[in-house]
Amino acid sequence: MSMRSNMKTVRISIIGFGYVGAGLAEVIRRKRADLVSTYGLDVRIVGIADLNGIFIDEQGLDEAELLKLRTGAKDWERPGGMTTLELIKELDYEVMVETTHTDVTSGQPGLTHITTALESGRHVVTSNKGPLALEYSRLTDLAAAQGCALKYEATVGGAMPLISLIRDNLAGNGVLSIQGILNGTCNYILTRMAEEGLPYEHVLKEAQELGYAEADPSSDVKGLDTAVKLVILANSVFGMNATYRDVEVTGITAITPDALKLADDAGYVIKLIGEVSREGCLKARPRLVPKDDPLNVGGTLNVATIKTDLAGDITVIGKGAGPIEAASAILADIISIYR
Amino acid sequence: MSMRSNMKTVRISIIGFGYVGAGLAEVIRRKRADLVSTYGLDVRIVGIADLNGIFIDEQGLDEAELLKLRTGAKDWERPGGMTTLELIKELDYEVMVETTHTDVTSGQPGLTHITTALESGRHVVTSNKGPLALEYSRLTDLAAAQGCALKYEATVGGAMPLISLIRDNLAGNGVLSIQGILNGTCNYILTRMAEEGLPYEHVLKEAQELGYAEADPSSDVKGLDTAVKLVILANSVFGMNATYRDVEVTGITAITPDALKLADDAGYVIKLIGEVSREGCLKARPRLVPKDDPLNVGGTLNVATIKTDLAGDITVIGKGAGPIEAASAILADIISIYR
Repeated sequence: MSMRSNMKTVRISIIGFGYVGAGLAEVIRRKRADLVSTYGLDVRIVGIADLNGIFIDEQGLDEAELLKLRTGAKDWERPGGMTTLELIKELDYEVMVETTHTDVTSGQPGLTHITTALESGRHVVTSNKGPLALEYSRLTDLAAAQGCALKYEATVGGAMPLISLIRDNLAGNGVLSIQGILNGTCNYILTRMAEEGLPYEHVLKEAQELGYAEADPSSDVKGLDTAVKLVILANSVFGMNATYRDVEVTGITAITPDALKLADDAGYVIKLIGEVSREGCLKARPRLVPKDDPLNVGGTLNVATIKTDLAGDITVIGKGAGPIEAASAILADIISIYR
Repeated sequence: MSMRSNMKTVRISIIGFGYVGAGLAEVIRRKRADLVSTYGLDVRIVGIADLNGIFIDEQGLDEAELLKLRTGAKDWERPGGMTTLELIKELDYEVMVETTHTDVTSGQPGLTHITTALESGRHVVTSNKGPLALEYSRLTDLAAAQGCALKYEATVGGAMPLISLIRDNLAGNGVLSIQGILNGTCNYILTRMAEEGLPYEHVLKEAQELGYAEADPSSDVKGLDTAVKLVILANSVFGMNATYRDVEVTGITAITPDALKLADDAGYVIKLIGEVSREGCLKARPRLVPKDDPLNVGGTLNVATIKTDLAGDITVIGKGAGPIEAASAILADIISIYR
């Protein structure tokens, strides 16, 4: 933890200032001193853009001030009528962090943001699944051609390391398959249904009240969110050229307390398991999981088991959602660019 | 997986040609084409040394031939009476892989091998716990002063990524504590005792017959092996300057089937848990673990839960032992030097 002599200033823009973007601002505020002392990085947010407006400051915006935007204690502005694309292209910065909402049918607005940033020679770190699920190879090719990094650890498994774990920590291994619980909402619902013997609709309502499920939960409970994450793994780990339409998907809406009870009696739990294999299997569906399998994790946890040819089975478990957790993955991606 | 234009030759020496050293030779043999196509690395074993003798070839030794040394189908040689230290200092190579046996009281012969290699300006990758548990800060300081890498992922958790996972994938996080099962022999014995209601001595014998426990199992079952791994985590993750003598250790030899039954009735298992925290806690002892805790893994598996300030709890599970598994960690370390 010694002070680094060769400190580097890293200027970032945050596009999309929702809960993940604001989470990153909070994390950068908390970690400023550590980033300097441990990594030699002086990380400054020099611009943020949102549907509501824009803030820019070449010397670095005050994160505490920015966070007031989320509570309504501060009003959005739009200096000189600047657009988000103008900010992405014209502001002086190194890394664009794209945290707008995921749209898996159009990929927008993230797709345009990421393309524009890469074309402008900026590194990109994103938590937005849509662009990567739809146009993975075009975006990675563009990044390579521009000599820019394109990092997206936060898109799959939140704070749980998976993409970088396979690429770096398991380097040299052939990956045979990845199986896991990639959606915390489904895991919460199935865990509660099994524990309490309650019907799906009842537990869904509970999950919505607790903020574990959205008002429109269909993307989660029908398996689409899991499918999109699988596609990102399929393309980045196995070099497939898949989109979410290639995934065989069955959601959890038809699972009954009776089915969970039968499974329990036989020593199993039912989980929504996403699976992708080297042979091209791409499935998201409810599956019986033995109770003593590492994939049997409860609550809102995410988990993935990576089957490899040298290291055997490696399982990783962590929080799949949450603003600080997503920001943790984004921050590790930013640091990795400067290692 | 495209062919890399800028291929780099990486010449390695392997010091200690026991089951881990031979496992690495086997892995390099299997993975030669992948290492070239995926990482642009032409990895050649140019020298091996063992108590029994030495083989060197500047163009690269034939791994299949070397593996015959382990079956007795090939005899050891010692060209020109060369010593191991002469090989380490004088051979032309980039990376020394140190895989001699762990001696936690003297650290030898690994300590001298590693020191000599670093002083000769070679990178070092090791699976040998002794030198790192005894002289961590001296060795890392020496490596830094020489501009050499010193990598040791294989020392803790075998194929299970832990040290590099914390440093890279969780970069930016403050680590609060690490708890885990770091010894597969103890886990096997406690798992079997709990499942079958059998006494310690009976299961130990079974483990010895299956090759899961050594003829002299004391380092494993008395907790020393776990303590040594904890010390490596304490020093590398928390910047402590600990040795295994600083660890409060209780082994598993006094655990009875009755104790396991009582725990089971209350919803717990008993596991030998190593724990190290930022506050300086350094303990290896049997602990009650709730059955639904991610730390409850069976058989010979290893597991670690890393408590962090941003990512929350991250758990990783994998095989803690085995020649190919250890070689997997060593290979990832070698690749990481050239990233």
